[in-house]
Amino acid sequence: MTRMPDGPNTMIGTDVGGTKIAVSLVDKEGRILASLKRPTETSNPDATLGSIAAAVKEFATANNLNLNQFSALGFGIPGLVDAEKGLGIASVNLGWENVAVRKGLEDRLGVPCLIDNDVRTGALGEARFGAAKGLKNVVYLNIGTGISAVVLLDGKIFAGVRGLAGEIGHAILVPDGPICKCGGRGCFEAVASGPGIAEWASNKIVNGASSSLLKQDQVLTCEAVFDAARQEDDVALETLREIGALMALAIENIILAYDPDVLVIGGSVVLGSPLLFENIYRKLQELAGGSWVFRKAYSKELVRLSTLGNNAGVLGAAALAVPLS
Amino acid sequence: MTRMPDGPNTMIGTDVGGTKIAVSLVDKEGRILASLKRPTETSNPDATLGSIAAAVKEFATANNLNLNQFSALGFGIPGLVDAEKGLGIASVNLGWENVAVRKGLEDRLGVPCLIDNDVRTGALGEARFGAAKGLKNVVYLNIGTGISAVVLLDGKIFAGVRGLAGEIGHAILVPDGPICKCGGRGCFEAVASGPGIAEWASNKIVNGASSSLLKQDQVLTCEAVFDAARQEDDVALETLREIGALMALAIENIILAYDPDVLVIGGSVVLGSPLLFENIYRKLQELAGGSWVFRKAYSKELVRLSTLGNNAGVLGAAALAVPLS
Repeated sequence: MTRMPDGPNTMIGTDVGGTKIAVSLVDKEGRILASLKRPTETSNPDATLGSIAAAVKEFATANNLNLNQFSALGFGIPGLVDAEKGLGIASVNLGWENVAVRKGLEDRLGVPCLIDNDVRTGALGEARFGAAKGLKNVVYLNIGTGISAVVLLDGKIFAGVRGLAGEIGHAILVPDGPICKCGGRGCFEAVASGPGIAEWASNKIVNGASSSLLKQDQVLTCEAVFDAARQEDDVALETLREIGALMALAIENIILAYDPDVLVIGGSVVLGSPLLFENIYRKLQELAGGSWVFRKAYSKELVRLSTLGNNAGVLGAAALAVPLS
Repeated sequence: MTRMPDGPNTMIGTDVGGTKIAVSLVDKEGRILASLKRPTETSNPDATLGSIAAAVKEFATANNLNLNQFSALGFGIPGLVDAEKGLGIASVNLGWENVAVRKGLEDRLGVPCLIDNDVRTGALGEARFGAAKGLKNVVYLNIGTGISAVVLLDGKIFAGVRGLAGEIGHAILVPDGPICKCGGRGCFEAVASGPGIAEWASNKIVNGASSSLLKQDQVLTCEAVFDAARQEDDVALETLREIGALMALAIENIILAYDPDVLVIGGSVVLGSPLLFENIYRKLQELAGGSWVFRKAYSKELVRLSTLGNNAGVLGAAALAVPLS
């Protein structure tokens, strides 16, 4: 695959999710110039690749773009990805295993394509254009339905020997705590992901706490807990205080493991509740006040909220296509 | 500082502790050919450097070695060390701050000297000659009076942005747990170091548990807990079971952070109690049985006991002087 020595002044990034595909044209400063969203077809891998390619083609046509003018296109893909080989190893959301994603897209689009995991493209987005701009040692912590981290050391993704170095969501935060999807107990993800937060509040109600959340007929969600906290519901406030404090402990441990320039928190959970982020901050300050070792590492600027929000993935996918030279 | 293109067939390593200095002649296979131990003079930095240099000179004379035949000498130094600048930044044991250790030794010995922190030389020793021989991604976890880790990524020490990446001893293992020397609560070191283990057993006795440890007049030590466990004392056995399980949690978290080729445990505490190491192993197996994420990383060979024991530091100091080309 040859690459043009001078990339164009714009790049195209595509963020593939389990339900929708987002395509954007991005300039060198990370401004989104045009976007398109289309549903992801997930009946089979071939249909999925077809729907991704169709969205990109439709986007190009609608914006008078000739795909051949781009040296490469970048794609963020959910699940386990072998970026070098261009394979989608496994994705629960897309329901595929060992799919030749890069080849499938290149065959359909006639342009070199680069793929990586969508949390990794989120990290690349923040490092190129967002909260970690200009920094080389970055932890990007994504807290949503699951929890995972991407670590950039000296500007490069640090994956570990078996590609597991980002699986910090399964570090044990609460010994003998709630059961995790991985089968373990008390994992960071089991406690502090969206479903984990909902369960934490739920358990308080099951144990007899009175709450406005009781009135809901449906299964309790993390969003409902956030809403109730805005209404000053005691159970919701206590949940966010406790979860915020536990998240701060996990963040301290991550900081002491990697000692990075910055730790950026993204993902729907923390972006969805400013109060939760405040609680994390307050506990981090308290921890740094207590421990002189942590104090050597910690400053208010060290832990930052994502500035790209939901666009981190698509911007990082664009950055994947045109790396900084 | 120029280095001879071909090093000699032997190297000299010196491990400086708060009470004694160990000097050894080591061959390329890591065999110790000769050794000498002398007390460390700690009245002031000048006297300390003098006592180190005197030990090395006495060792050379006693073994008919001409120090000039060595391209460099390697030294492991306690506390914070700036290896590149050759400075001892701070050491509680030696009672010094910002001492030009390398220059002080070179002036006294007339040979290029290389220094690094003693836990780091321990890690280099295990990676060159010991339990991590031939492996490039290594976590060396030292559990003694304190707890710290040294991480080798691709064969190089990973120190983080502020040199704190090894401070995993202050990751929080038991939220709101025992108070740590760093001022924090529930740090890995506060729970599982030698003094932490003694305190854990002590608290059981304070809370009314009956134990052979009660009969002792002195302050309870970790060694006393190990001895009592060998006599099947219930409090000691329960302590080592609980601490072993907590150590396993900490080790799982470290493995998920770095996903290394191997994690080597050294230091007086784990080397002092085979039962404790067994308990760690049993819990690690249980954790890997539970979590499919951890199971992807874990194998019985992943976590190993130091094979160099108390010689890891002096062997690593020797390795520091003559790196693998």
